Amino acid sequence: MDHPDMELAMPAQADLNLVPFVSVDNMMQLVHSIGVEDFIRQLAGYIEDDFRRWGKFDKVPRVASHSREGVIELMPTSDGALYGFKYVNGHPRNTKIGRQTVTAFGMLSDVNTGYPLLLAEMTILTALRTAATSAVAARQLAPQDARCMAIIGNGAQSEFQALAFRALLGVDRLRLFDIDPQATARCRSNLESFGFDIAACDAAEDAVLGASIVTTATADKQYATILTDNMFGAGIHINAVGGDCPGKTELHCDILLRSDIFVEYPPQTRIEGEMQQLPDDHPVTELWQVISGQAPGRTSAQQNTIFDSVGFAIEDFSALRYLRASLPMHPFFERLDLLADPDDPRDLFGMLLRHAPKVAA
Amino acid sequence: MDHPDMELAMPAQADLNLVPFVSVDNMMQLVHSIGVEDFIRQLAGYIEDDFRRWGKFDKVPRVASHSREGVIELMPTSDGALYGFKYVNGHPRNTKIGRQTVTAFGMLSDVNTGYPLLLAEMTILTALRTAATSAVAARQLAPQDARCMAIIGNGAQSEFQALAFRALLGVDRLRLFDIDPQATARCRSNLESFGFDIAACDAAEDAVLGASIVTTATADKQYATILTDNMFGAGIHINAVGGDCPGKTELHCDILLRSDIFVEYPPQTRIEGEMQQLPDDHPVTELWQVISGQAPGRTSAQQNTIFDSVGFAIEDFSALRYLRASLPMHPFFERLDLLADPDDPRDLFGMLLRHAPKVAA
Repeated sequence: MDHPDMELAMPAQADLNLVPFVSVDNMMQLVHSIGVEDFIRQLAGYIEDDFRRWGKFDKVPRVASHSREGVIELMPTSDGALYGFKYVNGHPRNTKIGRQTVTAFGMLSDVNTGYPLLLAEMTILTALRTAATSAVAARQLAPQDARCMAIIGNGAQSEFQALAFRALLGVDRLRLFDIDPQATARCRSNLESFGFDIAACDAAEDAVLGASIVTTATADKQYATILTDNMFGAGIHINAVGGDCPGKTELHCDILLRSDIFVEYPPQTRIEGEMQQLPDDHPVTELWQVISGQAPGRTSAQQNTIFDSVGFAIEDFSALRYLRASLPMHPFFERLDLLADPDDPRDLFGMLLRHAPKVAA
Repeated sequence: MDHPDMELAMPAQADLNLVPFVSVDNMMQLVHSIGVEDFIRQLAGYIEDDFRRWGKFDKVPRVASHSREGVIELMPTSDGALYGFKYVNGHPRNTKIGRQTVTAFGMLSDVNTGYPLLLAEMTILTALRTAATSAVAARQLAPQDARCMAIIGNGAQSEFQALAFRALLGVDRLRLFDIDPQATARCRSNLESFGFDIAACDAAEDAVLGASIVTTATADKQYATILTDNMFGAGIHINAVGGDCPGKTELHCDILLRSDIFVEYPPQTRIEGEMQQLPDDHPVTELWQVISGQAPGRTSAQQNTIFDSVGFAIEDFSALRYLRASLPMHPFFERLDLLADPDDPRDLFGMLLRHAPKVAA
């Protein structure tokens, strides 16, 4: 077997009922113990590994349950040895009642037994994997020696993007813009201790000046035009993170038409990404092809490239796989009594009977 | 709003990050504190409520990931106010390595916010809801005053079936048969303290003698013929629980042809249940139609009825809804730190930053 996690695939026979669980608090402790940038760097390695063996994965569309207020999705995938899924919601109006627009948790299981191996919060982990995936793509697509990145949309994803691009590409100059100046101020303040050279800009046109990479990560759930064609010359890389559901886009169509577009999983991106503005047969390159050397990334200094990111189940799988591999090395998890484990596996009722409270004499 | 859980739909604003979790141990304590039969009786009420409002539910097929050893499934559904899903595996060879063939856990969420409201073990809960659903169906379909039930297949589901049929129908005589006499002995011993009149039989033909209800709950994953047509006269109810996946059936086709067949959700049952032996247009009655008074159940003493049970997501939803409604009344749950909950919902990174360990001076 050449599965990268094979040495970890079979837990000890004791405590079959207990499933490691990484809570939000433990996830934060773990990230700090590793360091945010090292965490992203290591996670990026897992994502690249899984993109290289793309053909081994079950790829199914998200299973979505839509309502007036938002959507709840299950995102499963499997590589034949491990099975993973993420539960994630998207409720734009949640922030008005003090809640997160997006929350998530996920699970990794052993395909051979169906037994869960890990349960984890994934709100923070998704933010990290989204940023890591953007940087993984940019390492193939951004102009050589790109050091300056514009970030349009300075919300919950912005700082993660900044740190991922520094960790993987050495980006150290940021040009920030958000329609809400408080968001920009918060992003700048959060990044203060990380040593970036940061410019807060008054307009998107201003933010893109001198940037070799432009990251868009706005939150509007509507067709928006955050970037227009006249704002750019040639030779930039656009990391389009915000357009990630039907009806939500950020780039003017003309930018798409004069750029080479790279995507995670075309059937999903054509529905959810910037691609939804283009005909169904518009050519795209799949990121896994570039990472595995089967297709070129950037081919010239004049080329405009776009990574039309929507987030795919395999990236969550990589993140859970990375998290699981880390478990033996740190104390930042609990063990949940999630699985019934009778002494005789055919005697579930007997187990229940034997757990009756003792009657006092 | 007329949603039955409306008064429970909005948790207190405090502790948004914490999700109630019912572990295996707490589930067992809860079942004992309520009493197995009362638990099943109350759960049956929730199942009937949800079958009565069948049209309100999203009904989607299970999302299955098949492998050589088994299957991992996600079973989601929603009634527009609550969303539920169950993770369940089926790995027949697991018992050879001391594990359960089937394990499960599930979650209930608030559709309006996407926030999880409850996480629970569902290995035990599924056994209870399967038995409750069988008894709910039998209350509509079994001969009047049925007191004697044959149980063919005395594995993990058998005791739950026995208790559900006593709780809902007053069944107090059992005739047990299993190809493994140890399974029958274990079932009998487990049920000893519950006051049934139990006969251990040497053959299925023997077990069905005098029984008005025949429950089949065998575990073979292959086309099997547990019951043949010549074993019965007229007027019995067959509760066919074991045939629940493609390639797994228990009844001879001739029994199906001279019986009225009742199912949970035809698109699923025609693939997974005894129905897979019949043409796709063979008439069936949906159980929800009977429970809501839109179709008759048993119409004569001579009629043979079959409940072709495969288990449907709405029953799991009902079980999670019942479990959630019980939370304010008992201490048998923990609170899991599952959801990131920043003070400012747009400042996820700031929350992470503020949780950095303090450096010692």
